[in-house]
Amino acid sequence: MSSGKGGGGGGGGKGGAGGGKKKEVKKETKLGMAYKKDDNFGEWYSEVVVNSEMIEYYDISGCYILRPWAMEIWEFLKEFFDAEIKKLKLKPYYFPLFVTENVLQKEKDHIEGFAPEVAWVTKSGKSDLEAPIAIRPTSETVMYPYFSKWIRSHRDLPLRCNQWCNVVRWEFSNPTPFIRSREFLWQEGHTAFATKEEADEEVLQILELYRKIYEEFLAVPVSKGRKSEMEKFAGGLYTTSVEAFIPNTGRGVQGATSHCLGQNFAKMFDITFENDKGSRSMVWQNSWAYTTRSIGVMVMTHGDDKGLVLPPRVAPLQVIVIPVPYKDVDTTAIVNECKKTVETLEKAGIRADLDTRENYSPGWKYSHWEMKGVPLRIEIGPKDMANNQARVVRRDNGAKADIPTADLVEKVNGLLDEVQKNLFETAKQKRDACLKVVNTWDEFIVALNDKKLILAPWCDEEEVEKDVKARTKGDLGAAKTLCTPFEQPDLPEGTTCFASGKPAKKWSFWGRSY
Amino acid sequence: MSSGKGGGGGGGGKGGAGGGKKKEVKKETKLGMAYKKDDNFGEWYSEVVVNSEMIEYYDISGCYILRPWAMEIWEFLKEFFDAEIKKLKLKPYYFPLFVTENVLQKEKDHIEGFAPEVAWVTKSGKSDLEAPIAIRPTSETVMYPYFSKWIRSHRDLPLRCNQWCNVVRWEFSNPTPFIRSREFLWQEGHTAFATKEEADEEVLQILELYRKIYEEFLAVPVSKGRKSEMEKFAGGLYTTSVEAFIPNTGRGVQGATSHCLGQNFAKMFDITFENDKGSRSMVWQNSWAYTTRSIGVMVMTHGDDKGLVLPPRVAPLQVIVIPVPYKDVDTTAIVNECKKTVETLEKAGIRADLDTRENYSPGWKYSHWEMKGVPLRIEIGPKDMANNQARVVRRDNGAKADIPTADLVEKVNGLLDEVQKNLFETAKQKRDACLKVVNTWDEFIVALNDKKLILAPWCDEEEVEKDVKARTKGDLGAAKTLCTPFEQPDLPEGTTCFASGKPAKKWSFWGRSY
Repeated sequence: MSSGKGGGGGGGGKGGAGGGKKKEVKKETKLGMAYKKDDNFGEWYSEVVVNSEMIEYYDISGCYILRPWAMEIWEFLKEFFDAEIKKLKLKPYYFPLFVTENVLQKEKDHIEGFAPEVAWVTKSGKSDLEAPIAIRPTSETVMYPYFSKWIRSHRDLPLRCNQWCNVVRWEFSNPTPFIRSREFLWQEGHTAFATKEEADEEVLQILELYRKIYEEFLAVPVSKGRKSEMEKFAGGLYTTSVEAFIPNTGRGVQGATSHCLGQNFAKMFDITFENDKGSRSMVWQNSWAYTTRSIGVMVMTHGDDKGLVLPPRVAPLQVIVIPVPYKDVDTTAIVNECKKTVETLEKAGIRADLDTRENYSPGWKYSHWEMKGVPLRIEIGPKDMANNQARVVRRDNGAKADIPTADLVEKVNGLLDEVQKNLFETAKQKRDACLKVVNTWDEFIVALNDKKLILAPWCDEEEVEKDVKARTKGDLGAAKTLCTPFEQPDLPEGTTCFASGKPAKKWSFWGRSY
Repeated sequence: MSSGKGGGGGGGGKGGAGGGKKKEVKKETKLGMAYKKDDNFGEWYSEVVVNSEMIEYYDISGCYILRPWAMEIWEFLKEFFDAEIKKLKLKPYYFPLFVTENVLQKEKDHIEGFAPEVAWVTKSGKSDLEAPIAIRPTSETVMYPYFSKWIRSHRDLPLRCNQWCNVVRWEFSNPTPFIRSREFLWQEGHTAFATKEEADEEVLQILELYRKIYEEFLAVPVSKGRKSEMEKFAGGLYTTSVEAFIPNTGRGVQGATSHCLGQNFAKMFDITFENDKGSRSMVWQNSWAYTTRSIGVMVMTHGDDKGLVLPPRVAPLQVIVIPVPYKDVDTTAIVNECKKTVETLEKAGIRADLDTRENYSPGWKYSHWEMKGVPLRIEIGPKDMANNQARVVRRDNGAKADIPTADLVEKVNGLLDEVQKNLFETAKQKRDACLKVVNTWDEFIVALNDKKLILAPWCDEEEVEKDVKARTKGDLGAAKTLCTPFEQPDLPEGTTCFASGKPAKKWSFWGRSY
């Protein structure tokens, strides 16, 4: 559940159907990227997601078409996560897209957090509805009246629901593909327990799954931590999150959130159970979600001036095989060798394909598949055939190697593992290089202007966070807490808050964010 | 894509959160069904879907909560179908929920078919939108402007898109869970080809997959056929469908549709390609869909006065194991034997669970799991343990057998196959028993009042179908063509249309429908 505040980044979403003339031309000619990641990150991002064919801009601002190159990644993540939560006894549900005004407003803090972004249906056909109906921005208020009905006794607990669906938040600031869109896809888990201990335990189990999605699948390093009172989920007790960081823009990005809702919604929606002693208690609830935003974070993290760079575990295609014919050499034999290679790889469970299009040169194909971020390219020409080998080129670092045909599967598997590992390590080094520990306001401002990921001692007072926001606001958006990481450095006695000078209670990450 | 016309059946959807007092009480006590399938089919259906915990009524009329007992069935169907279409090279997409008025109205016949049911978003937060935005009732107009952009050359064809999503059709007549709801889940496939032959071929490939879903998974017999001009998809060239029939109400029910759109949308949305001779042609398009309605058809077909009856292939649970303790007998040993049984079955890939709740009697549990439609029940008591056997009871016909523990897996697998087959055969016999061939208007009216599935010779004129509708309209809804089945009986020369007396061109199914 993206907090949906703070300044945006990335390219705008104002193009008409398909994003205007410039992209049109490039799509035809595929001459590579017009923007560089370090020079104009926003335009670069916009170009990567379009040219790699992940995204098509839609004629309603803030809505995007997810093409197979994005959806297949989403399916890999979904497959992993869904199997994991089913092990935790989560059950699949589907609750309606719509919610009445009356129910939506039942939890005051909650609706205050979401009201400005809610889209309202007021008409069907040519008739006005009797009362406006909201489209879910999240489903707490959709689901919990029924939790109240379904939960009677301690034997009905825990209740563990998950749904995969779309939600709508009609935001107006800087729509960005994947990162901030008016409709997005997510899973939302909603659970109810008899005790706080069980709820607390699940919050962290789910957060660990979110870490795995980012670090082990998308190869994006994240920090686990707890949100400040100001940044926590509207109406909840506390919010944990995994936080990523984009060095180019110096912005944090909330990767996914796992909330303990405490008993607040239980009170509002009357969700109680008869405990084993015969008296009634309120349930403890959690909700947690991750969204298609995760794909955007991956693009921002690994992409380069040639385009997208995909971690092998989520790449729709892991290996692209390209025949390199020469004049006066038998092309059919080369193409057949390429086909055989693809078959061998596919049999070994590697996602491989070949590009035999005759109207494009090998060089053009190299650029095309680099733009799409395929982890490994295999080139096969007459020399390779004569030597019973294939040339393999890594997308992440451009390294080339000639591999004996007999070792192909083993070597390709090894290389895919290396690419996955290298992407994560490289991203981690870049992220860590941005980390700046500050102790004073002056250091903080320097680090902020320097696009650092700032770790600072804080008094943990809401007024102070508000004050920091007020003092740093500007075109780039204000700084705020990203999270208080679970891994806390020593906090020597006498350490003072960087912003208020009061005694510090914890180390927190600060910065601008998406 | 349900045609969404004709009279409704089934129970109303007017209950408040959870469907009113009566159901409330039954849920607590689980004393079985209040209504009988043959006496009050509408109330019976409503009761089955609620008491089996597939559906919860929602506080917006026509919207329903799909609970795990329904969603797990949906997941089985999805898993099968998605794998099959991926073999056909369909790719996953996600297009936005929203569409502008301008684009929605581009195809005149299409919008005429859907306009009265379209839900409109006109506000976000407290602000009015500049222009109302429609929620997709189906995605032809959402997608095809981008088909126009993506398709340039014959090398871009075929283009084959599929998405799993929700759609909204704000209907007002008789909402019924699964069968007719204002929001429902479906897959929608949208494809474009260079030639009509390829499009025609795919229409039938997909229709065959829909037949498999109904006949091989849901054990519901269907007829493949072609829709009349009046009943075809708005804006398309021709529509094929699989049609089921509900004997109790004498209504046909459209199971799923596979449309050839011809070149009509291609013309409106300018979807052309350069063929291999260098000139431009319009593409040929298909669209096809099946929805959560399929689950409702299954419930109506197999359910009985004890509740739901699930075909084993889609049952979330195939076997429920129930310990039958006796006084003065070691209960722990019995429960352990039950656990062992479940483990054995699960290891063999059978979906099994046990019910060890101490606050319910074995008899109550039998009724409970019969209500939920679990195909097989295994009872284990002291006598069974002494004889190294288990008692197995079939849900479909109540047959009981004592099975030696050593043969358990083999016998259970055999029984599951038999239940699956028996459900289909029984449903087919019942459906076939309703089939009535008529040749005259008088015979037609008798058969219609008799709730028959009517096969009649027809002149294939739209005016005549309109006339039949006008002459049969009433409280139960008018009769119409269901489809012209691909399997055509002989049509001897000189056969006349049952309704117009003109020369007949074909045999068509007629009746009332959902």
